[in-house]
Amino acid sequence: MERIAVGMLGLGNVGSGVAHLLGQCGDRIAVRSGKRVDLKWAVVRDPAKSRDVDLAGVRLVTDARRVIEDPEVGVVIEAMGGTDPALSLILEALAAGKDVVTANKALLAEHGPQVFAQARKYGRAIAFEGSVGGGIPIIQALGVSLAANQVQSLAAIVNGTCNFILSAMTQDGLTYDVALRQAQELGYAEADPTLDVDGSDTAHKLAILAQLAFGASVKTAQIAREGIDRLQLADLKYAAELGYAIKLLALAKLSDSGLELRVAPTLVKKGTPLAEVRGPYNAIRVVGDAVGDTFFYGRGAGMMPTASAVVGDLIDVVVGRAALTSRALNLWPEAAPAPRLSSAAQVRSRYYLRFTIADRPGVLAALAQALGAHAISIASVIQHDPGDDAPADSPVPLVIMTHSAVEAELTAALAEIDRLDVVRAPSICLGVEE
Amino acid sequence: MERIAVGMLGLGNVGSGVAHLLGQCGDRIAVRSGKRVDLKWAVVRDPAKSRDVDLAGVRLVTDARRVIEDPEVGVVIEAMGGTDPALSLILEALAAGKDVVTANKALLAEHGPQVFAQARKYGRAIAFEGSVGGGIPIIQALGVSLAANQVQSLAAIVNGTCNFILSAMTQDGLTYDVALRQAQELGYAEADPTLDVDGSDTAHKLAILAQLAFGASVKTAQIAREGIDRLQLADLKYAAELGYAIKLLALAKLSDSGLELRVAPTLVKKGTPLAEVRGPYNAIRVVGDAVGDTFFYGRGAGMMPTASAVVGDLIDVVVGRAALTSRALNLWPEAAPAPRLSSAAQVRSRYYLRFTIADRPGVLAALAQALGAHAISIASVIQHDPGDDAPADSPVPLVIMTHSAVEAELTAALAEIDRLDVVRAPSICLGVEE
Ligand SMILES: NC(=O)c1ccc[n+]([C@@H]2O[C@H](COP(=O)([O-])OP(=O)(O)OC[C@H]3O[C@@H](n4cnc5c(N)ncnc54)[C@H](OP(=O)(O)O)[C@@H]3O)[C@@H](O)[C@H]2O)c1
Ligand SMILES: NC(=O)c1ccc[n+]([C@@H]2O[C@H](COP(=O)([O-])OP(=O)(O)OC[C@H]3O[C@@H](n4cnc5c(N)ncnc54)[C@H](OP(=O)(O)O)[C@@H]3O)[C@@H](O)[C@H]2O)c1
Repeated sequence: MERIAVGMLGLGNVGSGVAHLLGQCGDRIAVRSGKRVDLKWAVVRDPAKSRDVDLAGVRLVTDARRVIEDPEVGVVIEAMGGTDPALSLILEALAAGKDVVTANKALLAEHGPQVFAQARKYGRAIAFEGSVGGGIPIIQALGVSLAANQVQSLAAIVNGTCNFILSAMTQDGLTYDVALRQAQELGYAEADPTLDVDGSDTAHKLAILAQLAFGASVKTAQIAREGIDRLQLADLKYAAELGYAIKLLALAKLSDSGLELRVAPTLVKKGTPLAEVRGPYNAIRVVGDAVGDTFFYGRGAGMMPTASAVVGDLIDVVVGRAALTSRALNLWPEAAPAPRLSSAAQVRSRYYLRFTIADRPGVLAALAQALGAHAISIASVIQHDPGDDAPADSPVPLVIMTHSAVEAELTAALAEIDRLDVVRAPSICLGVEE
Repeated sequence: MERIAVGMLGLGNVGSGVAHLLGQCGDRIAVRSGKRVDLKWAVVRDPAKSRDVDLAGVRLVTDARRVIEDPEVGVVIEAMGGTDPALSLILEALAAGKDVVTANKALLAEHGPQVFAQARKYGRAIAFEGSVGGGIPIIQALGVSLAANQVQSLAAIVNGTCNFILSAMTQDGLTYDVALRQAQELGYAEADPTLDVDGSDTAHKLAILAQLAFGASVKTAQIAREGIDRLQLADLKYAAELGYAIKLLALAKLSDSGLELRVAPTLVKKGTPLAEVRGPYNAIRVVGDAVGDTFFYGRGAGMMPTASAVVGDLIDVVVGRAALTSRALNLWPEAAPAPRLSSAAQVRSRYYLRFTIADRPGVLAALAQALGAHAISIASVIQHDPGDDAPADSPVPLVIMTHSAVEAELTAALAEIDRLDVVRAPSICLGVEE
């Protein structure tokens, strides 16, 4: 049986999972591909570190060039993360005639054009199922299975850390800070969780999904994004009272005005599949013109789920399928026209608004009038009696759910409202996903 | 650009959807495959029938041999259904060097070995994404994306007719007969719904899924199956009272005692994704050793969702990927060892039981004793007060939810119970899926 030597860059979370899985499923790979896959090299920073995986037969080195220059190596798995040196190593590996498997979404989102141009130049495959949704085969679904469809919209929970934090806030009534600490203790959040909680990681993944679903080559910087780091427990509670969960969504919608892309904490109706995604799980809803509604759910990160995707890619590469897919998808093509992104002015949605107002007669009327002047009508209102104990004229919350409104109008109305002297704090505004 | 001529056998529900979609997405296929796909032939029984699809450029004929003998045709789509003449046409098409796309689950479940042997013999591809779950890419997921996993279990709702009927019974309190009529009026059920409601169609699909997930070549006849046709509204109501929905599930579980396969109406805990699948939708839960829990959801049948899968397959074939997949999967191999199926004796589950008993003192004790003698313990009981108006000694229902029990023991206990003179009707027994 033909043997294929594999070199792996990185042996952290994902890399160890892959090494472990390769140890387990070698026979399965052989049956499915007719080939024996040998993990020959693993590249790390610190070869002395103790590692919780059987590395018999694997050469542990610090110099990635030894892997890339090894003519026996057919496939390089990049599981290092970051851009430097991962990007140059991937480019060199492709130039040396290796196929590449990676789960590095940050790298693909930022440097996809360069990486895919290099792959085309050297006729190699790049497989990246692990980059979005962990073990959920969403890359394969969008790139291959649903290829007959014009995708019309995507709504995705693709950051397990954020979803865990939001679930903990909702279910256990924890504040953001306490929930984040719990996520860190349980290993769902990094020591530095910035890229997760500020929405950057979700935006990286949305950039990749937008490529696959819409052929839209967008830079992460073009994606409007808001994280969960400033979300208040009060809004989760009011949303629940209105029958909604709040989820950090990656959203993409195609309409006459173009493609709308955004990452934002969003209200999702309870009982719908997205609203019921709990803890560190991920899920992606895809609506296609032929297939209609589809929904994919699973573990979006973690050692073994991500390894499942990476080793699945490895089989795809070894069988020869990944090369055909890479060519067929023609991602980040050289001369891609800039995608027509719809401006916020044209986006329509229902909105959740929370105002902090003086508890005085006439305030609701003033707010409603400002909204009405911008053609924004009110669907429901929550204002609880502050009780007789509350100090006179102390600020009270007022929550409004609007009917469908144009974002530009809403922005204008909120700017006016925030200037009213009865308004005591900047208003909070969240979109609603139907 | 290279042109590929396609011949389609059948232009009914699925065939018209495919013709329509090919008309729409030709450019998308060209971008993704570098090839122009021309629908050259469509084979029907009655060419005079008016058809709701644009057939400009398509030759409508009744003789399938004209398609199979056309050297220009590269791919044959079988969308006729049934076995005769579909089977012989598929075999001839493969022998003539055509790749084949089909959504014919009955044919694959019964004649898979012959079809795949022929494909191997002539080095051709067979693609069949549309055969299970309509537009949900479950074949691709199990066959390709999750290939690194040992699948541990599958639980699937793969018959939209049954799920529609069960949803209507549960939500609107309709009896089985009324719900079936509604499904027929809405086009979700055939005039003759036998294969749907008796579980045969679900068993066909389970046979295909078991091949992909476990490499188990099972005949449909080897799959224990029960349909929804004898299900009573009362059981849906009691299940709801206990916090469960009843779904017709295709179940596959790997354990030390072998592979358990069955199709049966099953209690599923409310709030879990499978329980929330409504109307004609389908869903498949797959648990893999590396990936953990995954869940796939979408429209499981219907013209355009199925066409989405068939045209997706066509792209896969045209790109050359399907041939590699067919070879790699090696489905229904020539010399496959018979799968080790676990016998009912070894299967463990919780069970829902409904007894029809005389309303007399001591009956519950007698039942509990019979169950206890077979090591079956009771988790909960529902017995409603029949009210003072009920005629004396009229039969009353008693519902019991057991803890985990061995099926063989349960069967023995129920046989004993049904012989008791206080038991007035055969007892009802349904499994519970955790
Ligand atoms: N973790 C997840 O659940 C997950 C899920 C999906 C995708 N991903 C992506 O997968 C990639 C890897 O993530 P991870 O969580 O596995 O990261 P990680 O745990 O930090 O592991 C990184 C590995 O790369 C090695 N490495 C880093 N820089 C190196 C250098 N300059 N030279 C040699 N070796 C170097 C490290 O060596 P030492 O061990 O010696 O430090 C370590 O083994 C990232 O792109 C991430 O975004 C991760
Ligand atoms: N319907 C769905 O939602 C669905 C979903 C998944 C899979 N499938 C599968 O797809 C296949 C087709 O289903 P369907 O619903 O499209 O069936 P259908 O509506 O009954 O269409 C069958 C087509 O085949 C033609 N045909 C049948 N026997 C023929 C013969 N002997 N010679 C020439 N033409 C013949 C019929 O011609 P006329 O039009 O002249 O009668 C008709 O166009 C089946 O295997 C089914 O299980 C269906």
